Amino acid sequence: MARTYRGCCAALHLREDNARFFLLMIVMVLYMLGGATVFMFLEGDNETKEKKEYDIHLQSFYDRYPSVNKSDLESLLRIHSEAESAGFVGNKRPRWDFSGSFYFVGTVVSTIGFGMTTPRTTNGKVLLIFYGFFGCAGAILFFNLFLERIITFLAYILRAIHDRKMKRKMGMNNNHDEARRDSGSIDEDSLSNWKPSVYWVMLILLLGAVVVACCASAMYYPVEDWTYFEAIYFCFVTFATIGFGDYVVSQREHYNSVHFYRLGNFIFIVIGCCCIYSLFNVTSIVIKQALNWIIKRLNCECRR
Amino acid sequence: MARTYRGCCAALHLREDNARFFLLMIVMVLYMLGGATVFMFLEGDNETKEKKEYDIHLQSFYDRYPSVNKSDLESLLRIHSEAESAGFVGNKRPRWDFSGSFYFVGTVVSTIGFGMTTPRTTNGKVLLIFYGFFGCAGAILFFNLFLERIITFLAYILRAIHDRKMKRKMGMNNNHDEARRDSGSIDEDSLSNWKPSVYWVMLILLLGAVVVACCASAMYYPVEDWTYFEAIYFCFVTFATIGFGDYVVSQREHYNSVHFYRLGNFIFIVIGCCCIYSLFNVTSIVIKQALNWIIKRLNCECRR
Ligand SMILES: [K+]
Ligand SMILES: [K+]
Repeated sequence: MARTYRGCCAALHLREDNARFFLLMIVMVLYMLGGATVFMFLEGDNETKEKKEYDIHLQSFYDRYPSVNKSDLESLLRIHSEAESAGFVGNKRPRWDFSGSFYFVGTVVSTIGFGMTTPRTTNGKVLLIFYGFFGCAGAILFFNLFLERIITFLAYILRAIHDRKMKRKMGMNNNHDEARRDSGSIDEDSLSNWKPSVYWVMLILLLGAVVVACCASAMYYPVEDWTYFEAIYFCFVTFATIGFGDYVVSQREHYNSVHFYRLGNFIFIVIGCCCIYSLFNVTSIVIKQALNWIIKRLNCECRR
Repeated sequence: MARTYRGCCAALHLREDNARFFLLMIVMVLYMLGGATVFMFLEGDNETKEKKEYDIHLQSFYDRYPSVNKSDLESLLRIHSEAESAGFVGNKRPRWDFSGSFYFVGTVVSTIGFGMTTPRTTNGKVLLIFYGFFGCAGAILFFNLFLERIITFLAYILRAIHDRKMKRKMGMNNNHDEARRDSGSIDEDSLSNWKPSVYWVMLILLLGAVVVACCASAMYYPVEDWTYFEAIYFCFVTFATIGFGDYVVSQREHYNSVHFYRLGNFIFIVIGCCCIYSLFNVTSIVIKQALNWIIKRLNCECRR
């Protein structure tokens, strides 16, 4: 702490904890400003083009049917949009039968919130607040316990690999000293202090998440008539619990072996969310280390 | 650990960590099954009613305009729905100007994901995966650092209150012993060991979240023409990062003092998400304690 007070943080009267928090805030705002600029350029032209196409289509309908009253059509269009978002249009599954309701509840507690199903009655909305409160807290605990379990498991595996490697290395270095090594407490102690690097854990979780997303996409894309990339995009948006709702699986009324598909969907989403949650948390540790490094550098600069 | 192995967990060959994880899994599935049942009853009737109303409305349009070709209208309705969800209909703000893009990026990194704006080009979708990866990890770190800061702050405040209370109590009990108390190291030690109860922290965070939600709703409901309750519902869905997208603020093109409103919106969403994230995490600790209590009881039952 004393060291910190000598650098830039001291000049701003900040403790290191607070300095890190404000630095992250600045980094996040810059990251968002940068991202906003790039997305604006990527998507802006397409928006103008799509809007023009829609206007042309609407106008051509009016031209073909001049007898249609404008306000009649507008009211129909408005009601149709609401019906579409409530899932009444086309061969969609019922939203509030038991399995639909279970799907909805799953999107609430996981905080994915696709929004294909939302409570439309006041009672439903009131219940959602209380139900969601405990549900989301429970799901966060579930994700945290999963993270703890997976870290323990990975640490165990990585240590076993490390142990074997060390033993082989030592076996090559001092073959003549075998008796001491097998009973030796010094070597065992140095092994037990070893902890797996956060980068290894991150890499393994990343590989795990990619494998889960690829497998899930392989299931989704033929069934939902998407491209493989669209399925990957859906997997990322869902597993990261962003859940835009632009792509939602298991929404049609009829699938081949529908129960099997729904079960697979449920399992993939649970495993995927767990993996990505763990991955994000481990990545956030790496980001924190980067922030600490920046703060250290800033303090060194100030002290010159 | 040894104690654990004597109870139910031992019968199932489970370590306590794993037992807790599986118990939570079971509790969550039961919670979801229960929730699904209740929501099905609350929302099911309304769905049937709304679907009937929509069918009647559509049919009455066809009856009034028999000349309209059915497939022409259906294609218009389909295109209109897409245009509606892309934000071209009505006096909506442009989705991909800079502030719209910034709003979008905010819904990505916070994992709220309203879905009012989504990348529609392939390039945008590819970028989203990489951008979202680091953005979400950064936001999780931000929330975690906020949680750490707020816990430290609350612990400091609660300890100050506790210290004052203890000192007053001691002052009443042994007024004659004042000299010893002021210089006494024993009393100071017992004070420094004191930690605030997780229930107090939870209560304060809950109050904080309710206050933020009420203030935010007071801003939203007149501007967006919602009821106050709808604004509260929106606040919960947003701050919990569920983000259904059935209610989304700041979507119209024209507001009075639009920049001020957008800034206020941004600040409220950041503070609200931080509060609810902290609250969920503290609540999850309480749930974990409850699970530990259940495991202890189960082990006692088994040992009889
Ligand atoms: K979400
Ligand atoms: K969402």
